Amino acid sequence: METVNVLILNASLKKEPESSNTQEVAEMVVGKMRDYADISYSSVHLINHTIPAGVSFDVGDGDEWPAIAQKMKDADIILFATPIWWGHRSSLMQKIIERMDSFDEGDSPLGKKPMLNKVAGIVITGSEDGAQAIMAGLTGTLSFMNFTLPPQCCTYWVGEVGQDPKTDPERRRKNEAVGTMAEETAKSLVHTALLLKQHPFPSDKN
Amino acid sequence: METVNVLILNASLKKEPESSNTQEVAEMVVGKMRDYADISYSSVHLINHTIPAGVSFDVGDGDEWPAIAQKMKDADIILFATPIWWGHRSSLMQKIIERMDSFDEGDSPLGKKPMLNKVAGIVITGSEDGAQAIMAGLTGTLSFMNFTLPPQCCTYWVGEVGQDPKTDPERRRKNEAVGTMAEETAKSLVHTALLLKQHPFPSDKN
Amino acid sequence: METVNVLILNASLKKEPESSNTQEVAEMVVGKMRDYADISYSSVHLINHTIPAGVSFDVGDGDEWPAIAQKMKDADIILFATPIWWGHRSSLMQKIIERMDSFDEGDSPLGKKPMLNKVAGIVITGSEDGAQAIMAGLTGTLSFMNFTLPPQCCTYWVGEVGQDPKTDPERRRKNEAVGTMAEETAKSLVHTALLLKQHPFPSDKN
Amino acid sequence: METVNVLILNASLKKEPESSNTQEVAEMVVGKMRDYADISYSSVHLINHTIPAGVSFDVGDGDEWPAIAQKMKDADIILFATPIWWGHRSSLMQKIIERMDSFDEGDSPLGKKPMLNKVAGIVITGSEDGAQAIMAGLTGTLSFMNFTLPPQCCTYWVGEVGQDPKTDPERRRKNEAVGTMAEETAKSLVHTALLLKQHPFPSDKN
Repeated sequence: METVNVLILNASLKKEPESSNTQEVAEMVVGKMRDYADISYSSVHLINHTIPAGVSFDVGDGDEWPAIAQKMKDADIILFATPIWWGHRSSLMQKIIERMDSFDEGDSPLGKKPMLNKVAGIVITGSEDGAQAIMAGLTGTLSFMNFTLPPQCCTYWVGEVGQDPKTDPERRRKNEAVGTMAEETAKSLVHTALLLKQHPFPSDKN
Repeated sequence: METVNVLILNASLKKEPESSNTQEVAEMVVGKMRDYADISYSSVHLINHTIPAGVSFDVGDGDEWPAIAQKMKDADIILFATPIWWGHRSSLMQKIIERMDSFDEGDSPLGKKPMLNKVAGIVITGSEDGAQAIMAGLTGTLSFMNFTLPPQCCTYWVGEVGQDPKTDPERRRKNEAVGTMAEETAKSLVHTALLLKQHPFPSDKN
Repeated sequence: METVNVLILNASLKKEPESSNTQEVAEMVVGKMRDYADISYSSVHLINHTIPAGVSFDVGDGDEWPAIAQKMKDADIILFATPIWWGHRSSLMQKIIERMDSFDEGDSPLGKKPMLNKVAGIVITGSEDGAQAIMAGLTGTLSFMNFTLPPQCCTYWVGEVGQDPKTDPERRRKNEAVGTMAEETAKSLVHTALLLKQHPFPSDKN
Repeated sequence: METVNVLILNASLKKEPESSNTQEVAEMVVGKMRDYADISYSSVHLINHTIPAGVSFDVGDGDEWPAIAQKMKDADIILFATPIWWGHRSSLMQKIIERMDSFDEGDSPLGKKPMLNKVAGIVITGSEDGAQAIMAGLTGTLSFMNFTLPPQCCTYWVGEVGQDPKTDPERRRKNEAVGTMAEETAKSLVHTALLLKQHPFPSDKN
């Protein structure tokens, strides 16, 4: 089996990755990818890195974004993983979308269209409501960033309105729909990543 | 107590209003309004009316929209009630937003800014996910349509992802958060409607 | 060159397709596809068809949706083309998304996952503001419907806030960004459609 | 005339407030308020403050959010002013929405429902597309945060797709629609703020 490189970008606001609902679902998706290819993966917990707000490739002052961008360049599949805060992707996810603006401009050290031939997957968790709207907002932007978005590219969990957030992990782990989605997402991301490794989009002539 | 006129516009796709989750929550909100004012209310189940797609005030051919628009003009509070379909307000709700376009143009028989001094409330129900995004989309448009949107102007129910939709009504009725929201929405809509009846926005001079 | 079948679904509220901004941009995208494959295409102007609101595959009473759904099944690329009304896709586009709900249920005459191995493109036009939000809402849903969404899958035009809508077509036709987007969208949709014809997703075993 | 306290929260990513499109439009709205009341105003340029990501009232480590939250408590009208980045409010605006989460929990030093009886206005600028979606996302959340949203609560500028962003300020300043919106927003915010100062929502008994 060919090796597929996967990168998780986790935008959870919690500093401890081990207790992150979002991380747990993202890793479930990666785990299920192993049925379809050899998987090499790494994970970036964004809150543990110094990433100033801005729209340049490198804003200086110890900016860790250029190194993370290089990891993105090296990956075949990138999982954008975010919690829901007030119906929106977290400010950390929005901040890296802003930082990706320099990819679109084409003048970054990563070259023109650095995300072409890469596949994007999405993982979202929240106590209630907002996953589909966040997924939509991400897919829209990621297509303009030149990612390919396969069928079932998103796995999410949202609970019923008005429950105690402390019991979220417990209810989520019991939810069979999440496992089914993760299976579909994993299969679809890997199939598409392998296709694009073998048959990449032709380069722009200019 | 002063009488407040309430109109429910129900955009459910189901023809039988009696089994509409959305209708049941909308009527719960209206019921709780009775603690704060005399309430006179009527309800329009949009799917039972002939409302062609379009953006004029009257598109002819038995168009029932002008009569519904007149009911809106006569109301103090309008509850926009919609189910969730693929994360969006139903096509019936979108259709009446499009028909309200003529209000914004100011050349309808209802006069300039026909919705000024009216209060909008929102009711949304769906098996899972989407209420806050739909609520957001409606509040944005309704502010431009000159409605006032009070605090807690929306009451909704959404369930956990992946449950059997047939059990939605049962789970919804048990959900205490919906009752609390309905109470907050009712109180806030009535307070604001009474304020605007007594202290309306000054008319435009031109 | 292999033949690629393209279907335009145009959700314009105007009855005359010849004057539709949306149709004109959609046909520009199809025209540019001809550089990359033999293209066979047809176009459905939704407002000219009887498509009742609902969520079943066939709601009876002269319902033309099943015939349109069959055209979707026969296509390799489907262009979802919509104007913007109050920041949202038109009610006609929302109505067919609702009607596509039966695809997701898997019990339609079209079989399980009828949209797998198809590529979705998006075309949006509006006087101002809303294209990216509508594109996002569509990409989110279409991924769950099993479409593949290639890079740059959307071509749109929006004007500056507050201009005279009568001059929209004129300003749009002068706008070079629309042509560039159409070129990118065409190339990307055709490349991906050809890939999926040659290397389809494996069928589900169950 | 009574004095109305206005606070601008500017979420621009640019460090120099003097060149901020968003700031310039926000100040235009405040300027037009002076026709309707005595206005006292201050402005917080968020990027110049240390506001860590999080959801507590005070996350320590020189967190400047509690002081900004106190300014919000002291204001009658708050203008949420944001640029558009990839169709969304900036990460700085999302970050303060997350920090406002503690208002909703009711256990902050500001007391229960600290934003009740306050009026929210919105200012958005961007090269193209996204203002109405951002406005919608903000109005939805702000209603749940107990703000009142008056008619025409948002003033925005967006340009035509594909123009040179360097010419944004010039095109924006020529745009008459922005001035008209600012006038409507100013009038409506002040009328509603005065009403709520004189006739506040009744306090919760519990």
